[in-house]
Amino acid sequence: MVERTVFFLSDQTGVTAETLGHSLLTQFSARNFRKMTLPFIDTEDKAKEAVRTINAVRESGGPKPIVFSTLVQDEYRAILKEANGLHLDIFDAFLDPLAAELGEKPSFEPGRAHGMSDIDAYMKRIEATNFALANDDGGISRNYDVADVILIGVSRSGKTPTCLYLALQYGVYAANYPLTDEEFESGDLPDFLLKQKEKLFGLSIDPDRLCQIRKERRAMGKYSSAQQVRFELRETEKIFRRYGIPYVDTTKFSIEEISSRILDSTGVERRVRP
Amino acid sequence: MVERTVFFLSDQTGVTAETLGHSLLTQFSARNFRKMTLPFIDTEDKAKEAVRTINAVRESGGPKPIVFSTLVQDEYRAILKEANGLHLDIFDAFLDPLAAELGEKPSFEPGRAHGMSDIDAYMKRIEATNFALANDDGGISRNYDVADVILIGVSRSGKTPTCLYLALQYGVYAANYPLTDEEFESGDLPDFLLKQKEKLFGLSIDPDRLCQIRKERRAMGKYSSAQQVRFELRETEKIFRRYGIPYVDTTKFSIEEISSRILDSTGVERRVRP
Repeated sequence: MVERTVFFLSDQTGVTAETLGHSLLTQFSARNFRKMTLPFIDTEDKAKEAVRTINAVRESGGPKPIVFSTLVQDEYRAILKEANGLHLDIFDAFLDPLAAELGEKPSFEPGRAHGMSDIDAYMKRIEATNFALANDDGGISRNYDVADVILIGVSRSGKTPTCLYLALQYGVYAANYPLTDEEFESGDLPDFLLKQKEKLFGLSIDPDRLCQIRKERRAMGKYSSAQQVRFELRETEKIFRRYGIPYVDTTKFSIEEISSRILDSTGVERRVRP
Repeated sequence: MVERTVFFLSDQTGVTAETLGHSLLTQFSARNFRKMTLPFIDTEDKAKEAVRTINAVRESGGPKPIVFSTLVQDEYRAILKEANGLHLDIFDAFLDPLAAELGEKPSFEPGRAHGMSDIDAYMKRIEATNFALANDDGGISRNYDVADVILIGVSRSGKTPTCLYLALQYGVYAANYPLTDEEFESGDLPDFLLKQKEKLFGLSIDPDRLCQIRKERRAMGKYSSAQQVRFELRETEKIFRRYGIPYVDTTKFSIEEISSRILDSTGVERRVRP
């Protein structure tokens, strides 16, 4: 199948163009996309080079490239429009109606979207990340008083990446505590967690999936055996039910979705907003 | 100043709507926005509730709400259009031209954008995150052979959050190693780093900013003193120059920007794409 090249152009990181493009492309069954991000197009030379890159793809005989673009400055956008592709530009589409509604002309200044416009937000994300690291896997700090949420679940259910994502994306203070034999044998949660019961949120996962994930880490032995994994997940669900702890099955969800669902379900406020 | 409410509507996490809206709003000097995300609008009831929420804002006498939306399903979009606001919808704007170019009808299936469409990508992100954690701050693994990039810089220059972001967003294996008195006194980098010289990337930072960040951690003492901070940064730059190590000044950039600049400068390939 012939590859279709998709470009993400930006005068900054390209994150917005990629996010937009990804949302749209997933609506189509076609999967033959070759994706290229051209970030930091902030000079006339770079704009012209991007045009040459796009045109080279077209001239090599492939189908028309698709170009998602979030360039702000008119002069560079004008240059890029000369490239032979399908141009989908969020500023073209939305800036005029937004300007009319706000009664204000846009600044056309590049690079504000993911810029350090707000040192305060940067600090909050860093602090939340440090909190997640210090309170990962039941350790070091157990500083649960200031946690926004405490994730509990078995080893490899997705606790650590979810906590880090909550910190980096939202500035949320997320701790996590692993459920192990100690909890499974007694059926109890430790007192220091029960004191924070309203902050607890569970992660569950499909047993086959968990087996697969654990085998990547340790191929043999009890840890990744189907029997052990089933036992742990059964006991975990008992604990969630016993204490009425809300939980999400992480099997079908990405880290972004798990994080959004936790915020949505708990009502925890983000400390940082886009 | 009267607050303007901005809604981000989605049948999924809302990340795409927020990213899009943020890019556009930063083009205006107005800052009086009250931002609300309404995620997981995936039933008729939830769509109607969202309409009531939006209309309540309008009826309370404020200015017309701005509504960034990434709902896929026509029936829920039709309901939401009844809400009294300025609707900016990426599917409205871009889906038709994209469908025409691809010669394919969109699926209108919700939730593919940040869904776990790809278990492989999920695993890669998790593995990269585990790598970043095991190779954070010069420790535990020093598994630099398989690193894609090794960040070096002084304490609190942004190494850890950048490594974690590179892992979570791009599946890139990023280690980091702190420069300390040992390196400053000799002016040398240790052999195990020099063996990987082509993977090294430096982070620098403005001294005043670093003082401020360190004072948040330890208000008193040498660690956060202006003299010590200036000494460390001066010696760090000497090391970067001596070995010809590329570096970025993290002072003015967000974590997203620092990460994008590292990928752009080093040419490290992402393991995961949106």
